This record gives sequence, C-alpha cells and structure tokens, in this order.
Amino acid sequence: MRVEGEERRTIWPAGDGASVEILDQTRLPFAVEIRRLQNVGDAADAISTMAVRGAPLIGVTAAYGLWLALRADASDGSLESAREQLLATRPTAVNLRWALDRVGEAVRGLPASARADAALGLAGELADADVATCRAIAEHGARLIEAARAARPGEGPVNVLTHCNAGWLACVDWGTALGPIYLAHRRGVPVHVWVDETRPRNQGALTAWELGQEGVAHTVVVDNAGGHLMQRGQVDLCLVGTDRTTARGDVCNKIGTYLKALAARESEVPFYVCAPSSSIDWSLDGDASAIPIEERGAGEVTRVRGRVEGLEGLEGLEGVSGPALQGPLEVSILPEKSAVANPAFDVTPAKLVTGLVTERGVCDASRPGLAGLFPEHAGA
Amino acid sequence: MRVEGEERRTIWPAGDGASVEILDQTRLPFAVEIRRLQNVGDAADAISTMAVRGAPLIGVTAAYGLWLALRADASDGSLESAREQLLATRPTAVNLRWALDRVGEAVRGLPASARADAALGLAGELADADVATCRAIAEHGARLIEAARAARPGEGPVNVLTHCNAGWLACVDWGTALGPIYLAHRRGVPVHVWVDETRPRNQGALTAWELGQEGVAHTVVVDNAGGHLMQRGQVDLCLVGTDRTTARGDVCNKIGTYLKALAARESEVPFYVCAPSSSIDWSLDGDASAIPIEERGAGEVTRVRGRVEGLEGLEGLEGVSGPALQGPLEVSILPEKSAVANPAFDVTPAKLVTGLVTERGVCDASRPGLAGLFPEHAGA
Repeated sequence: MRVEGEERRTIWPAGDGASVEILDQTRLPFAVEIRRLQNVGDAADAISTMAVRGAPLIGVTAAYGLWLALRADASDGSLESAREQLLATRPTAVNLRWALDRVGEAVRGLPASARADAALGLAGELADADVATCRAIAEHGARLIEAARAARPGEGPVNVLTHCNAGWLACVDWGTALGPIYLAHRRGVPVHVWVDETRPRNQGALTAWELGQEGVAHTVVVDNAGGHLMQRGQVDLCLVGTDRTTARGDVCNKIGTYLKALAARESEVPFYVCAPSSSIDWSLDGDASAIPIEERGAGEVTRVRGRVEGLEGLEGLEGVSGPALQGPLEVSILPEKSAVANPAFDVTPAKLVTGLVTERGVCDASRPGLAGLFPEHAGA
Repeated sequence: MRVEGEERRTIWPAGDGASVEILDQTRLPFAVEIRRLQNVGDAADAISTMAVRGAPLIGVTAAYGLWLALRADASDGSLESAREQLLATRPTAVNLRWALDRVGEAVRGLPASARADAALGLAGELADADVATCRAIAEHGARLIEAARAARPGEGPVNVLTHCNAGWLACVDWGTALGPIYLAHRRGVPVHVWVDETRPRNQGALTAWELGQEGVAHTVVVDNAGGHLMQRGQVDLCLVGTDRTTARGDVCNKIGTYLKALAARESEVPFYVCAPSSSIDWSLDGDASAIPIEERGAGEVTRVRGRVEGLEGLEGLEGVSGPALQGPLEVSILPEKSAVANPAFDVTPAKLVTGLVTERGVCDASRPGLAGLFPEHAGA
C-alpha cells in the first residue's frame, strides 16, 4: 500500500541481491525508516524487537532469514542453527514455525550450492501467497462494506470500527481487516474508520498511520469509546482480525476484541472477523475458554512510547545524548509499586461473530460454516 | 484516607483563613503536592484542569470557589459571575450545579457583609456531608463484599473490578466505589482490586495510588482486559461510580463503564454502581440515549503523561531546562494528522446494573427501587 505516495510492501529483497529490506515498525508512526537485514542475526533481531510484527509478516521474514543464513553458509549445520535462532524470537507465533518448516524441508534435499536460491524463491512465493490471500479477503470484505453503504439511510460514509492493527503492516500488503476498507475506498465507496487505540501497545497508531497514508478518513478513539459509539448509531460495521480461529469459529484476537463484540451484539452492529485460513487451528474444537492466553510483560502497561515535543533543542548540547534524545521515548504512567497484569489476547465466542471473512468467502462462525468453505478440513 | 501514612482529605480551608488547599491531582501519582486556591479563578482553573476531579469534589470545590469570590466582592454581580465561571468548567457534572445552587440560594438573601462567612460555613458542611455520604455508601457496599467473600468457594481474596477513580480523590474522603473496599479491608476482609487503566486520562493510576497508600492489594490492567478476566472467573464483583444517575437507574459514568457492564452480565458477575443521591438527576426520566455526552479535547487521547526515566542526568547541565525536565512529561502517541474523538462518558442502561449502592442502602436500578429509598422524590 501507499507510503508517502509510493506503493510499498512491508518486506522486499534489496537491490543488491544480497540482503532484505523492511519498513522499521519500531519507528512508526513517528518516522518512515527502511532497515536493511544483511544476515540471519539481523532478521532474528527484526522479529524479536518487533521491527516486523503480525503473524504473516513474521513468517515471511523468517523465510528470508533462512535465505540470508544459507547465502553465508549453506551447510546443514548453518540451516539448523539459523532455524533455531529464528524460532526462538517469538515462541508462540504459529506462522513462524510453519514458514521455517516449509523452507527447511524444501532446501534440505538440495545440494548446498542450490539451497540459497531455492530459499530466496520460496520466501518470495510465501510473500506473494500472503498478498493473494489478503487481496481475496479484501474482495469479500469490500462487498460487506458496499452492502452496508447500500443499507444505510441518508448520506455520509460507512462507519467501520476496527481494533488493533490487522492492516498491511501486519502482513506483506493489503492486510486482513483493513484490506476490505482499502479496496472499498479505492473503488470510491465513502468509508470512515473508528480506530481503537488498542492498549497496551497502541497498535491503533499503526492503523491510523496506514489509513492516513492511503487517504482513508479515520478517527482514533480510546478502547473505552466503541460501546458508546455503537449505542449512538455511529458504527455500521465492525471489522477485526484474528490471531487464532478455532474450528468452531471462536476467535482469539487482541485483548479487548471481546468487549467490542459484546457491544456490537447489543446494538445490532454486524461484527465480522477477517480470518485467513492460516489463522484457523482445526485442532481446536473444544471449549475456547481452554485456549491458553499469552501473558506479556508488565512494561507494556506501565510504559507508553511516544514523541516528546520540546527536547529537540537539547540535541545540540555537548554531553547530552542517550536514548532519551534518539526519537520516540517511553514514559512510566503508574505508581511504581502497583502490580500489573497483561493478558495479550481474549476469546470472542463464535455466537458474537456475524461472519468470518476468509480468502474463500464469508461464512458463519461455526463448524458447518467453515466446513462449507474448507471441505478438506471438514472431517478433521 | 492515608497519604504517606497520614490521614488526609482532598480539600480543606487553609490555615490563613483566606484560601483553600487541595491535593493537586494533576501531579499524582508521581508526586504529592498541595496547591493553594486564592480566588475564584484558581478554583475554576483547578476544576477545569482536573487538579480536582470527581463529581462530589467538584461540587465542594465550587462551593469554596463561591466563598473565595464573595470574600473579594460580596455583590450580587460577583456572585452571579462567579457562579457562571464555575458552572462553565465541567458541563456534565450535576453536583457542580447543585452545589452552586445550594450556596447561591443560601447567601442571596443575606446582607453582603454576611455572605462570605455563610458560604464558607456551607462549603464546610457540604464537605462534611459528602464524607458522611461516602461513609454510609462504604458501609452498605462493604456488606456486598463480605457477602461475595462468604459466597466464594475456596481461599483467596474477593476480586473486585473497578473503572476510573471513584475513590476518595474524587470525593472529600472515603470515595464512592472504593469506600466499600477500604472499609472491608480495614475490617480484615481479604480484597484484591482489578484496576482499569481508564484511558484517556488514566485515572486508574490514581486508583492504584490510593489503594497502594491504603495497603489494599491491587493489579492494574488495560481497559481491554476486564472482559477476559470476567470470562475466566477472575472477578467476583464490579464496583464503579456514577457521574449522573437517571430517575430510572440508568448510569452515566466514565467512558468504558458500559463495556464492563456488558461483560459482567455475560459472565454473571454482579455489577454495582455506588451512587450518592447527589448524583441522581430526578428530572431525567426518559430515554437515556438523549443525555448529552461531554466531548473533551483531543490532546487527552493524543498525549500521555508520565515520568521519564533517564533524563535526571540532564538537569545539572547548563542551559537545559523547560517543562521536559520538571517532572511528569507528555509524549505524543499518534500520527499528527489523524482525527481524534474523545467522548468522556457513556450510559450504562439500568438493566445491566445489579444494584445502586446509595447512602440509604442498596436498591434496584429502577424507578421503584429508587423511590423506595428516596420517597421524597417518588412523585417527582
């Protein structure tokens, strides 16, 4: 999608044929900076520091990381140690292991001289496949937005509420929940997006940045506001992503998604989840309350990162340096002795989900609904 | 309640007999600072900048503000202009108008020479009455906590979730939603409080600070987390405050309260609203969706205030000064061009409220429920 007017992806092979470039997401939304990954250590670092984030993008980055490792040393030992190094970066990311397994299996049987090229080709295929999946979701989801526009009385845009960042920054291009919005917008459907801030990591700032770059009207609200907006008829449609979808259509997504789904049901606002089939865990067919929820560090809650205004003048002073003056800075917002809990995801029960938007179409959030679109998994 | 081990109120007449002192809540939880209000402008400023906040405390501060105005000029014109100046600070706060009307009516019939003393006396009475009201709410609410403790299987504390700060910092002492917690804790009932961060102004930090000063176990969570905690059985009881309660028991409270009430109903967690009768607007007997909601400034959403670590070393450098180095500092967290909306309150319909905890006891959130406790208003 567009960055300062230019079409971009989140990751691409660099022109030198020997490295990969990424948009550095730790600098967004404050600065657009491209970071070059020259070896597997750079790739692992980009994943673990969240310079790249989002399940699909993490997988693609790991695939390119294996390429970088094999370029330097195509031996079995190099492949294995690169795999372990990359796998350790985000232990819970399902796509990470999946992408590493795909590339590892494909190159292991090849002679050393052919391995790097094969890995590069496969990484590119994974990236393109992700773009195609997101583009298909965008197509199906855009129809929902167009239908909401047609059903809406009077003038004004379709108001879509979204939570977290399920945009192109989390993927390679288009995004899942934001893809339909971009496509509808490019087709001339007037859309306005309510962007949940999404504490604790404020991924809403990334969503707002994406939407702004693409020229889509949007308004950022704190996570507390969405229920009120729905009560007052200011939301026509909710579109969110999913980190993991069960075979019964329960949705494990960013913490707070569940609260918006409750409010949507109460105000009869359609609540759609954009779910690429890679997010569906067909083995999860039981009580969703058993899904373990990742508990992340307290620092995400106790500290907030932002731009400081008024520190620029300090940079020229002799002896003044340090992280405080090198761009975004963190402030501590809580009493020091208070305990903090930080569950990263919650489970939205299928009964609150109007439909799942997959790359094969829209279906009920249910076992029969999913089986209709993915019959190859129906007997699982 | 306790501040660094000492019993304090949020507002008190200063020793000089000519001014009022407050705990400056814009400095909390980072620093305990006392601010002196010397004239009605200081009082209005303290209310509008939220150096004092919370419906009851705003009312008491406004009453002292009228005293300060009448000390300087006891004419009808002075009274009227002070009233208007104070009323304009927070349009949603029903206690503000109530307190101004009380003091205004009491002094209007008096000779100018007697007005200031009468206002001072009445402001003190309002403060004491608020403490008595909160203490009574604490008594009725503590019984709910004790009952939850008795009903709870197994060991462990009663887990109470609260939103915003309806503590003693919002009142003169004790608080509304936190009063029952303090009383139960002082009586030896084991209590643990889930503290909602409460974006955009992070009043959860004030709640955490209060609880910490009083020695009550607590854990801060982002506003997104409460639904998940209730789904997983980690909340026994919700206790929140109210800015305005309708005659039918609908509750207008801090934005996000409604989302927690929805989650509480879904998980069968009792949801009690601590509502002093001063918060009840007997004239509001219709559709709660007609209540106008205060839209506050975008800066509350775009900027976050906190302590910066790592800047201390700069303070000694020649030429380095400015707000950045004088304690809490604000960071900007959003893309500069993104629009922002900031509704400050939402309406929780009576049907989601298990009961209202008033100074006269606990009642159904309904017209008959309220009429039973406040028969003098039943015919209104």
